[in-house]
Amino acid sequence: MTKHWSTDRTEAFSDGVFAIAITLLVLDLHVPDDELTNLWAGIAAQWPSYLAFVTSFATIAGIWLVHHRLFAHMDFINSTVIRINLLLLLDVTFLPFPTRLMAQALNNEDAERAAVLFYGATLLASSLALAAVWRAVAGDHSLVASGGQDEGGELKVIGRAIVPGIGLYVLATGVALVDPAVGVWAYFFIALLLIVRVHNADGPAASS
Amino acid sequence: MTKHWSTDRTEAFSDGVFAIAITLLVLDLHVPDDELTNLWAGIAAQWPSYLAFVTSFATIAGIWLVHHRLFAHMDFINSTVIRINLLLLLDVTFLPFPTRLMAQALNNEDAERAAVLFYGATLLASSLALAAVWRAVAGDHSLVASGGQDEGGELKVIGRAIVPGIGLYVLATGVALVDPAVGVWAYFFIALLLIVRVHNADGPAASS
Amino acid sequence: MTKHWSTDRTEAFSDGVFAIAITLLVLDLHVPDDELTNLWAGIAAQWPSYLAFVTSFATIAGIWLVHHRLFAHMDFINSTVIRINLLLLLDVTFLPFPTRLMAQALNNEDAERAAVLFYGATLLASSLALAAVWRAVAGDHSLVASGGQDEGGELKVIGRAIVPGIGLYVLATGVALVDPAVGVWAYFFIALLLIVRVHNADGPAASS
Amino acid sequence: MTKHWSTDRTEAFSDGVFAIAITLLVLDLHVPDDELTNLWAGIAAQWPSYLAFVTSFATIAGIWLVHHRLFAHMDFINSTVIRINLLLLLDVTFLPFPTRLMAQALNNEDAERAAVLFYGATLLASSLALAAVWRAVAGDHSLVASGGQDEGGELKVIGRAIVPGIGLYVLATGVALVDPAVGVWAYFFIALLLIVRVHNADGPAASS
Repeated sequence: MTKHWSTDRTEAFSDGVFAIAITLLVLDLHVPDDELTNLWAGIAAQWPSYLAFVTSFATIAGIWLVHHRLFAHMDFINSTVIRINLLLLLDVTFLPFPTRLMAQALNNEDAERAAVLFYGATLLASSLALAAVWRAVAGDHSLVASGGQDEGGELKVIGRAIVPGIGLYVLATGVALVDPAVGVWAYFFIALLLIVRVHNADGPAASS
Repeated sequence: MTKHWSTDRTEAFSDGVFAIAITLLVLDLHVPDDELTNLWAGIAAQWPSYLAFVTSFATIAGIWLVHHRLFAHMDFINSTVIRINLLLLLDVTFLPFPTRLMAQALNNEDAERAAVLFYGATLLASSLALAAVWRAVAGDHSLVASGGQDEGGELKVIGRAIVPGIGLYVLATGVALVDPAVGVWAYFFIALLLIVRVHNADGPAASS
Repeated sequence: MTKHWSTDRTEAFSDGVFAIAITLLVLDLHVPDDELTNLWAGIAAQWPSYLAFVTSFATIAGIWLVHHRLFAHMDFINSTVIRINLLLLLDVTFLPFPTRLMAQALNNEDAERAAVLFYGATLLASSLALAAVWRAVAGDHSLVASGGQDEGGELKVIGRAIVPGIGLYVLATGVALVDPAVGVWAYFFIALLLIVRVHNADGPAASS
Repeated sequence: MTKHWSTDRTEAFSDGVFAIAITLLVLDLHVPDDELTNLWAGIAAQWPSYLAFVTSFATIAGIWLVHHRLFAHMDFINSTVIRINLLLLLDVTFLPFPTRLMAQALNNEDAERAAVLFYGATLLASSLALAAVWRAVAGDHSLVASGGQDEGGELKVIGRAIVPGIGLYVLATGVALVDPAVGVWAYFFIALLLIVRVHNADGPAASS
């Protein structure tokens, strides 16, 4: 039997990383000094930064919601889940870099496509990592005190929220190849969809 | 009946975001190298940065105090509250951007008004988001173990501390339209007022 | 009777602020690109930054140790302690600014004295805020479940570690007026002294 | 008998510092504006930054894993462990600086060796601090509720994961003296090795 730990510190460390990554995004929002003379125009001209900001915010928020529901279901954690979770955190800490790049490159014909695709690849990696954490949890029944009965099909509900994200990111990246600007909006709506779906109370899990 | 969770991780994640947003504000305080020769004057010349710093610090501190008291009252959290809380966090993570802009623009005739109004709009949004979290909590009696009896009128006391803030921010933004510098001070005093009112022990909640 | 809360979230929020402020200090350490050709010399030339870094690290670490011991003694928190604690956090979040300024100004005859005095004033303010938190705790016997008996003189032991710091900071600031470089070292040793004294197991508190 | 505390706040503060340090690393990833015209090449040209990023990420993740397992074993903490733990945190908060320096200096004949050795010295210091925390825990049997019986040889398992790291860092630093680029890869693999070894369930600790 493998060694088990309480999930407390993994939750605390993950919450710290999510909270910091989501808050660091704001450091890339700024208006150059020479646009102060017409500040409303200067603020408006930063729209690619805002789109990148809210898309990454929504993505990390969605990942946090899944993480929250998945870990609320677990009573213990094993070494495999801890390590795969670190891969997820690696992707989340990396996300501010492609976010910044995309904000830099939107409105720039040459760079836009590469930046959006690079951003999309990072999101795709995060959805794969999230699914891998979920699979590792589903694969060890002893992580749930009730013996992994998956009462109310909780794990199935979570899986149904995560897994389609992988396909959607592949699809949106195809769209981004053709039209990068549309691709960014697709990434934004995928994140919103995850936020809407993951904590939905319908299905067999709808019990107190 | 909708699904409920412990409030633990939402509190931890929110505390992380509040703590980081409040601490990142310091990154925008600095004295240019060429003002080192007369450093006291250089330090004093940064007053708009300090005013923006303490106003945003007091605002986030006030939001945290409300959040603290509201979540201390709750025993569980539902999906609606979790999601509206994310909107509040979005506003808080965004706040360092208008703070920085305002510090940049104070002392600059052209930009001052736009920067202060943009800052005020962000504060108004945060007070609306806070009120929305409060309403969502008040609307689900099952979040409180006692069945939502609101013993001691705790929710009413918290509501009385939050709701007037919305009107005050509208008012202060009117003032900022006429005189931006006075508007900033108004925002500062609204934040102080929230800090003074929210944790006041008077009223029906004044029990141990 | 005033309203009481669990100390949990105030500890979590404070720990967040302490952890972030102590970690942000590293952002001001860097070697200019043009010193890469002789990097060991370039690294060595940054000594004022390192001294500022470890002094601020030791200061925040010392404040955290006091905070840790004081809150370990408390069972509840009241509104007054929460608010005074926010003043302490305001000072701690501000500290990276004078730290950066001092690192910039050491080795600069004109600016050194002002920067060190400004830094010292921030440290003095933090020791005053810490003492104010301690007094507010000592003043409300109902914050300790045992009825504030101060078993083992725990509050006295903590007070004896904090209060002398105020005098020492005044003294060190006098030294900094005469010789700024010596003043910085004095601030460093005051922080070390706090770290050594606060968690000392001697005195009446030396029980398990 | 020396005074004991719950490990809660030391874990929370350490988790905060680990989470922030690991997330701040991303701030040093960026592509210069003038490389936007050929962005894929610009992204690829940043490989030294990515190598430095993942090496430092893996190192901090490994330290966190050891910390997690060691503190899960402890029921209490004493002043000595708290203080030595602060030394470990000092090293971790410092790590982003040599990481940045190494990313700057890779590809630069003059600076590469110095930067990699400076980085390696910081990693060596972290492995020494980690071993010192472990020794301080092993030296006070009263930190474990069971009276320090070290059931299952938990402390021995942790020690076997940490101690060889010291020798490996010395070795890798020797390699870095000869060939800095190979040295960086050695640091990366040492971190991976720690991640693989520390939470291994084999040995006497392999019980639930």
